[in-house]
Order: sequence, then structure tokens, then C-alpha cells
Amino acid sequence: MSAAPRPRFVEVGPRDGLQNEKRTLPPAAKIAFIDALSQAGLEEIEAGAFVSPQAVPQMADSSEVFEGIKRKEGIRYSALVPNEKGLERALQAKVDKIAVFTAASESFNQRNINASVAQSIERFRPVVLKARQSGLPVRAYVSTAFHCPYEGRIGPEKVMAVVGDLLEMGVDELSIGDTIGRASPVDVRRLLDALLPVLPLERVFLHFHDTYGMAVANALTAWQEYKVPGFDSSAGGLGGCPYAPGASGNVATEDLAFAFSACGAETGLDLDNIRAAAACLETHLGRPMASHLGRVGPIRS
Amino acid sequence: MSAAPRPRFVEVGPRDGLQNEKRTLPPAAKIAFIDALSQAGLEEIEAGAFVSPQAVPQMADSSEVFEGIKRKEGIRYSALVPNEKGLERALQAKVDKIAVFTAASESFNQRNINASVAQSIERFRPVVLKARQSGLPVRAYVSTAFHCPYEGRIGPEKVMAVVGDLLEMGVDELSIGDTIGRASPVDVRRLLDALLPVLPLERVFLHFHDTYGMAVANALTAWQEYKVPGFDSSAGGLGGCPYAPGASGNVATEDLAFAFSACGAETGLDLDNIRAAAACLETHLGRPMASHLGRVGPIRS
Repeated sequence: MSAAPRPRFVEVGPRDGLQNEKRTLPPAAKIAFIDALSQAGLEEIEAGAFVSPQAVPQMADSSEVFEGIKRKEGIRYSALVPNEKGLERALQAKVDKIAVFTAASESFNQRNINASVAQSIERFRPVVLKARQSGLPVRAYVSTAFHCPYEGRIGPEKVMAVVGDLLEMGVDELSIGDTIGRASPVDVRRLLDALLPVLPLERVFLHFHDTYGMAVANALTAWQEYKVPGFDSSAGGLGGCPYAPGASGNVATEDLAFAFSACGAETGLDLDNIRAAAACLETHLGRPMASHLGRVGPIRS
Repeated sequence: MSAAPRPRFVEVGPRDGLQNEKRTLPPAAKIAFIDALSQAGLEEIEAGAFVSPQAVPQMADSSEVFEGIKRKEGIRYSALVPNEKGLERALQAKVDKIAVFTAASESFNQRNINASVAQSIERFRPVVLKARQSGLPVRAYVSTAFHCPYEGRIGPEKVMAVVGDLLEMGVDELSIGDTIGRASPVDVRRLLDALLPVLPLERVFLHFHDTYGMAVANALTAWQEYKVPGFDSSAGGLGGCPYAPGASGNVATEDLAFAFSACGAETGLDLDNIRAAAACLETHLGRPMASHLGRVGPIRS
């Protein structure tokens, strides 16, 4: 276990987390949230999305948010971008990195972004090209990489097909998502056995949801057994699950980092500050945070 | 992984779970809860405790509960017993098995049952002897086996000392408890590396709390890597944590069994029925159940 690498966290709370929240937050609350996260030791924060305000009202203010945040040196502030128009706005907002979004499941992609997997990839081909010409690194989300809410279990071969197209297009890193939280460590091993022979470890991020309580076990499996260093997480467990109202969503950054820490890793994160940053959103969202650490309160060493 | 044994669950919700709940349940609600659990495929249910009603008011009705339940063939109904007086009551109630309770941490034992570890063991020596003479199997709880709320980290050598005394006394099985939920898979490996050379696998049960969200990862580590088959859990995640009000307590039976199932195990449990059995207590307890599955709702295959 001593050879497990230092874990790297991509904080997705301000985008992936908030976008599933029903109550729209004022931009000032988002800016304060991101600024607090910047002080907590995170190296990358997905701070917004340049998508249609009709489709995702919660992200309509991303330009204002990017303008308002205090950027800290050494932190990458990224944004989700679905098309060339979004990329224009992202470039104006001076994002440090962009992310595009597709899925391993045809049915999910169709219902989520109204395109087949192949169409979605063709749609963002010019986005990726232009982003790279502008010197921006590109992440691609591959959601429903283990289970799909419509199709059930998704085999590694479907993930590998999408991953192949994305790598060929020049995407820098992949975020492999267990969108509905049904993956187990056995599923994680099966997928990593297929994925890692074609993808260098540092270009893989795993994006777990804690819907069924298996996110921490999955992340530790990938890190301890396969030496995968990169994980997405969401401060306060922000996010919920649109397919199971009331259920947990993205794994909480503080829960995941606590577990890595308890396994001996140096995370560089201030967990009490992350927990507190998320807790400040409770009034806006009208509910307590979903993280385990949020319920425990300040951590005693 | 194919060699991992069939997991065995000891349901501790009606005793360990309820005993930490502030609102006292009527015996009829406990009886209905246990009867529902009996129908859900569990093989052992800790149904009560014959302790001082002043010390643990929630357990004052254990004789009535044992009298009221519909015992199902093949299920062991056990009870916690602190002393000879408790054993008399347990024998009258025709329990199938008893459990005694101590801790690996001196400070915890002192504050929890007002005895040193050595005193607690001497105190139940005649209980264990008499129970065995009566043909009852005996379980011993060793709590704070990883961390103590007062002393911090507990080394495996402290656990091994208590375990040695218990085995020498003739205890049949041990339930090794992470009372405050701070153990990680690394801690689990460290303890099992010390424990398993002296204790046959089938006599070890691990008792995890999900306070920090690591219970499922810990259980899967013990099961997959060490082939430990036995785990304690609590339907609905009943229990809470007296050291962190509002935090999760015992790992939920349905969450743990779901994770084992997702890893390919045949658990024999009906998770929807376990979830539903716990949900029936929500009105009495005045709060929703804490399990992940409880929040997701009925499981779609």
C-alpha cells in the first residue's frame, strides 16, 4: 500500500454539484463558496458551465461567477462547455480548462443531451480542437460508465469505444462516472482492467456517486489496488441524484479525503474548511449537507 | 475474489441500534420490527438486553419482547447480558445465545460500564461459565478496537490482550467493534494481520459504524482480502453515535448487504423488506432512517 500515489481531487461541487440542486443560488453565494474552496487546498475547481440558461438555469451566471472569484495561483478553474458558443463564453471568462460531456450509454445520452454518443462526440470535436488551439487542456466526462438508469449494467467494451474516440480526438483526461452510484469494487476492477492498458494513470479520473454508499470503497479500491490518483468529488456531497430524489449524490470531498487520510495519504486538504464552505450553502439550499463529516461536525485529531 | 465466503450478518438493530435511540419504543413496535426482520432472511438477530432498566430504559422490556416475537426456525435470537442476574432473565426468556460486552480501551470501559477491562472480564467470567453449562453459545463484544473517543488510536496489541482473555474463558465468537467509525481499511488490515493467526475466521465478526462513511469499505476489505465472513449491522442504520449527535451510527444492514451483493455475493437477504422493517420505526423515532438504501427507496434490479 505504501506505493499508492498522492491522491488528486477535482472539486466538482460548484458545477456538477449545484447543477442538480433545485433552488437557484445567487452568484455571490457561488463566488463565496468557490473562494472558500480555493483556500482549502484544492488544486482544481470546476467553477461553472457555459450551457444554455434555459436547459440549466443554475449555471446561467457562470460568466459573472468567473469574473467574481479570487483566483489563487496554482489552482485550475475549469468549466463545462457543450458547444462552440459555450467555448467562446468560456474563453472570454478566461477559464483554465474545459470539460465536455458524453456517456457510455446510448439511452442515457439521448435523454440527457438529446444526441447519440457518436453525435455528441462529433458535436464537440470542433470544441476540443479550438480549445487545444487556445492552449486549454480538455477533460471529457464519460458518464454511466458502470450502470445506466435506463439500460442497466454497462459493459467495459462500451466505455472503451467512447474512450477510444475521445483519445483519438485529443482529449487530455477522462472522468469516468458512476452516475447512479451502483458500481461496486468488483465493477471498478473490471473497468480498470480494460482501461488502464490503453490510458496512462494520470489521465484517468474516477467520478463516484454515493447513492448506495459504495463511493468510498470504490475510490479506495482504485487507488490502493490500481494506483489511480485522480478523483472527482463535491464539497458537502452537493448534488443529489435526479433518478432517486432525496438520495445522496456525488461523493463528498471531505468524506473521500478523510478516508484517504485515514489510509495514510497526505491530501493537502483542510477538511474542516471544506465542510464549512459547503455548510454556508445550507440556508440557500434549504437542507443540511449530505456528507458524513458534515453530520459529525468539526474533526478532532 | 471468487474465493470470498458467503457473508453472514448478525442483525443488531433491535438491541445495539435501538439502545442509542432517545425515544423509547413500545414493545409492540419492537416485536413487529423483529418479526419483520425474521422474514427477511437474517440468521441471527440480537433482540434485546437483560441490563439494568435504570441504565438502559430502552431495553427494560426485553422479557416482554422475547415473549412476543414469532420465532422462526433456523434463526438465533440473542441478547446482551452483563451479569448473572441478567443471565437468569435471559434463560427465563429462552434466548438462543448471549453476548457480553467489554472494550479494548481502558478509558472507554471505565466511562461506559464503570469497570476496568480486567474487572469487566472478571465480572462476566461466571456468566460465560453458566451460559456454557446451559448450552448457550457466547459472543463477546470488544468495542473501541480501533479508536477510542478518549484515548485516540488503539493498537492491535491492546485488542489482542482482551481477545486472549476472552478465548481463554471459553467465549465462542468475538465481535470486534469500530465504535466511533474512524477505522480505515489500513487499520482493518493491521488488526486482522494480528488477530487471524490466533482466531479461526468463523469466530470473528466485525462491527463497523458508518460515522465517517468508511464502514462499507472496511467490511469489503475484510471480506475480500481476508475472507472474514461475519459482520454486524443494523437495519435502517439504527443507532446513531453518542459521541457525535446527528452522525450515522451502525452500518445499515441493507447498505452492507447491497454492497456485498454488488460484489457478487449471495446474501440471502430481502433488502427491500429490511428497509421497510426499519422504515416502520420512523414515526416512533421521529426521524427518517439513516441508510443510503432508505433514501433511495425500493431497489430496481
